[in-house]
Amino acid sequence: MSAPNPRPTTTGGAPLRVALLGCGVVGTEVVRLLTTQAAELASRVGAPLELVGVAVRDVSAPRDAVVDRALLTTDAEALVDRADVVVEVMGGIEPARGLLLRALRGGASVVTANKALLAQDGPTLYAAADAAGVDLYFEAAVAGAIPIVRPVRESLVGDRVRRVLGIVNGTTNYVLDRMATDGLDLAAAVAEAQALGYAEADPTADVEGHDAAAKAAILASLAFHTRVRLDDVDRTGITGLTAQDVAWAARTGHVLKLLAVAEQVDGPDGGALDVHVRPALVPAGHPLAGVRGAFNAVFVEAEAAGELMFYGRGAGGAPTSSAVLGDVVSVARHRVLGGRGPVESSYAELPVQDPGLARSRFQLRLEVDDRPGVLAQVASELAERGISIEAVQQTVEPDGAAGAAVLVLTTHTATAAALHATVEALRDLDAVRDVVSVLSVLRVEEP
Amino acid sequence: MSAPNPRPTTTGGAPLRVALLGCGVVGTEVVRLLTTQAAELASRVGAPLELVGVAVRDVSAPRDAVVDRALLTTDAEALVDRADVVVEVMGGIEPARGLLLRALRGGASVVTANKALLAQDGPTLYAAADAAGVDLYFEAAVAGAIPIVRPVRESLVGDRVRRVLGIVNGTTNYVLDRMATDGLDLAAAVAEAQALGYAEADPTADVEGHDAAAKAAILASLAFHTRVRLDDVDRTGITGLTAQDVAWAARTGHVLKLLAVAEQVDGPDGGALDVHVRPALVPAGHPLAGVRGAFNAVFVEAEAAGELMFYGRGAGGAPTSSAVLGDVVSVARHRVLGGRGPVESSYAELPVQDPGLARSRFQLRLEVDDRPGVLAQVASELAERGISIEAVQQTVEPDGAAGAAVLVLTTHTATAAALHATVEALRDLDAVRDVVSVLSVLRVEEP
Repeated sequence: MSAPNPRPTTTGGAPLRVALLGCGVVGTEVVRLLTTQAAELASRVGAPLELVGVAVRDVSAPRDAVVDRALLTTDAEALVDRADVVVEVMGGIEPARGLLLRALRGGASVVTANKALLAQDGPTLYAAADAAGVDLYFEAAVAGAIPIVRPVRESLVGDRVRRVLGIVNGTTNYVLDRMATDGLDLAAAVAEAQALGYAEADPTADVEGHDAAAKAAILASLAFHTRVRLDDVDRTGITGLTAQDVAWAARTGHVLKLLAVAEQVDGPDGGALDVHVRPALVPAGHPLAGVRGAFNAVFVEAEAAGELMFYGRGAGGAPTSSAVLGDVVSVARHRVLGGRGPVESSYAELPVQDPGLARSRFQLRLEVDDRPGVLAQVASELAERGISIEAVQQTVEPDGAAGAAVLVLTTHTATAAALHATVEALRDLDAVRDVVSVLSVLRVEEP
Repeated sequence: MSAPNPRPTTTGGAPLRVALLGCGVVGTEVVRLLTTQAAELASRVGAPLELVGVAVRDVSAPRDAVVDRALLTTDAEALVDRADVVVEVMGGIEPARGLLLRALRGGASVVTANKALLAQDGPTLYAAADAAGVDLYFEAAVAGAIPIVRPVRESLVGDRVRRVLGIVNGTTNYVLDRMATDGLDLAAAVAEAQALGYAEADPTADVEGHDAAAKAAILASLAFHTRVRLDDVDRTGITGLTAQDVAWAARTGHVLKLLAVAEQVDGPDGGALDVHVRPALVPAGHPLAGVRGAFNAVFVEAEAAGELMFYGRGAGGAPTSSAVLGDVVSVARHRVLGGRGPVESSYAELPVQDPGLARSRFQLRLEVDDRPGVLAQVASELAERGISIEAVQQTVEPDGAAGAAVLVLTTHTATAAALHATVEALRDLDAVRDVVSVLSVLRVEEP
């Protein structure tokens, strides 16, 4: 809150100089919107937006015709130095970080879609923006076209957010959806997503949950007024999931989704935060269960507002450019009319909880000997560690091993540590042939 | 865009004086949030929010204990005159209009939930806010807790919105839901809604669509940068609907919803706006079809962003107060840090289309003589007016009149005028015993 009073840097009418860093799929669509909607954007801002340059690595690479080649430059620093608004869609940590700090220190407003940079080093960027009295906006960094940063940072700022649940990675949602609808195994579904352009050639950032974890850190920071970094996020991707896991989810009335979760857990001094990314069983009737294909959705539970959901396209050039341009207009208006948008709010300084203490419901799927007494043995291992059982389903599968049954146990809430200790003990039981899967079950609040 | 440069009226640390006009269900919850979250709100604003008074009609009426009776006053004008931020949750046109103009002219920022006032006289309020260089915020006026005003006014401001579809009245959604799930007739469902507190003793504003029409006008104004007033909205409520209409919707794969729609239709000079409220058949697979009970949802189609949906609680004291407080924090931050939020944007000045020219798909349900040649006669009446048929379903109902069949026709898009002329002609056919219902069918964009 130590920002200097904002000073309009441009009076109404004089063009605002916009620099674009990066010209891939998103950058190209940003150029298209700036070009085809120039008149409308000028009316909305109160001054024309003039694209003064596009920084790229290779000016000779082939590009969409909407990009004026005369604007291309490899000298990003010089471009940044002559801009009022710097738009960064290049991604990665460096050189994006250095360029954005240079922009902010030079008094330019910044709009970025760079979730990795924000999750790793957001406070440094915020501090630079604050020192210069300029805006740092990043709606496109989380869930593409879906307005979620602004609602959490502004609309819900008078409320107390309790939990944020997001399907924030379209690639993994597409993969899980295909596994559910057509019984594909993970590799086949990933290959299909790659063929359709939903997954990168190297899908690691998506399938291992790194991308979702960065978004979880950003949402947690905003919702709970606390600095949460990428390393604070307890992360499990979808690479351990099988077609059987997805099929069993359906058999027990659930849909398997990769969820990014940020939750305030009660405790002394305001409690702590549980921030994680992991596959979870979502009850089929929950609104998040119906989010199909590459769509994204973020579900927010707040004390006064109750349950809110935001749904839309979480990736792709055009949807992401919509979010970028909304921010460009907002920061440009501030330069025309004076003022600034929200600054970093991290006063709450809540600690991030040890993941072992995190509480969840769990579903365990075991392969056990099909004989009397096995359930009693299993149940006593859970009881010994204070874990109570909500539901049990035992079946002999037509394609199962001889003399084996499948035992599916759903627990009431338990800590991750107690659950993991129980799983170790179950593995030691003679009657337990295998602990096939251990999955979290989404806790649904009573409305 | 002629606003003077904003001037911070309070330096960081000095309390901001908040006046509350109205202390019903929403006002009481606003007091509760201001009181119980005072420390957090001060951290978020950068200065304490001090509730300096609550204007009511009757200071002696019974109230929730959270409301300090010493703050109550019947002198709303004097209260307004000593406030930095005026929060209006009294509703109705006067005295709310006069008080808010007085507040704005006196340099106070205004937060209001008053959809009727905004839809009837928003431009006058905007002009007063602009002249004084202060904020006019109204997130709570549309869809309660759901952030929709800010996303449309700010997040989507770099995009071109094509259509906004909203379930923005929880009372009618509850009523239609109960008619669908339990086959209740309209009167029984309304009575149930009244018993549960979802409907007023006089349900006219809800069931006749006035409330939804005010919200449609506000959303249309924001989405299309055009002044749209309540009178511009073509409005049909739900009072003409029967249990049979709702049941037939399900039989044809639809759910009947009261939709508030604002759409830009192509034409010269940017086209025109179709803004209406009416019951419509929503295909069962559309996300709006799944909005149950008293929940609200707004579906937005934009050129770059694609499809977005915002879902949550559209009414009630606590949810509405969440939206109010988000606005209070936003306008208070502007007073601490300087600057203003968005001003009125009405540069597009699109005309509102004659309702007769509005195009829609329609579903007609006719009672006809059960004999050969009837469908041919009916079809030729449609063909004569250029209306093509997409689907026909003819059945003899077990409980139907002797010799009668039910004919359900779904058309491709046609103008309302052509459809109404056709209906008149159909009524004149001997073989047509009755045109039982004529309903719009939601046009679903191909993704």
